Amino acid sequence: MVNQKYVEVTIGGKIYELGGPENPEYLQRVATYINSRIGELRSKSGFLRQSAEYQNVMIQLNLADDYFREKQRADQLEERVERLEKEAYDLKHQLVSNQIKNDKV
Amino acid sequence: MVNQKYVEVTIGGKIYELGGPENPEYLQRVATYINSRIGELRSKSGFLRQSAEYQNVMIQLNLADDYFREKQRADQLEERVERLEKEAYDLKHQLVSNQIKNDKV
Repeated sequence: MVNQKYVEVTIGGKIYELGGPENPEYLQRVATYINSRIGELRSKSGFLRQSAEYQNVMIQLNLADDYFREKQRADQLEERVERLEKEAYDLKHQLVSNQIKNDKV
Repeated sequence: MVNQKYVEVTIGGKIYELGGPENPEYLQRVATYINSRIGELRSKSGFLRQSAEYQNVMIQLNLADDYFREKQRADQLEERVERLEKEAYDLKHQLVSNQIKNDKV
């Protein structure tokens, strides 16, 4: 049995019933985020005078831009984690070799 | 003078001229990513029989889901960076205090 859950979300002022394995709270959070981005665009002068198609593409571009920003943040943090793990490894190694030297003395 | 650049991108099979401060290569990369997500959805059975409005919302939900995944990845990595920075700090401190002890001996 597939764990299918249904949840009603409002996106862009319209109600949709979504079904899927995702947590309903997560889907609400995603819908709230999309609505905030749509709201920002709609508040810009001239946006609502554009065609529905153009408005949709602008929404897509804004969501995709957010994705790329977070992806870049995650990638940079991943590099930093690698550097720090190496640093911690080297420091532990140094501690142990100092200990061995002192034990000899 | 605002540094406005123009670039033609194809999204969902239609050409748009975008203007903004962003790098044209970046906008192409964003467009390619959106097209790949649209392509994935269109290849799903029944998707193209849905209304244009429903299709648009599904595209938005998929892009937003990607954003949340990367955001979670970045947030988790940020916590790991904090733990590793503390660990490296503690190890350095330990190295220095061992050194002081040995100098006394």
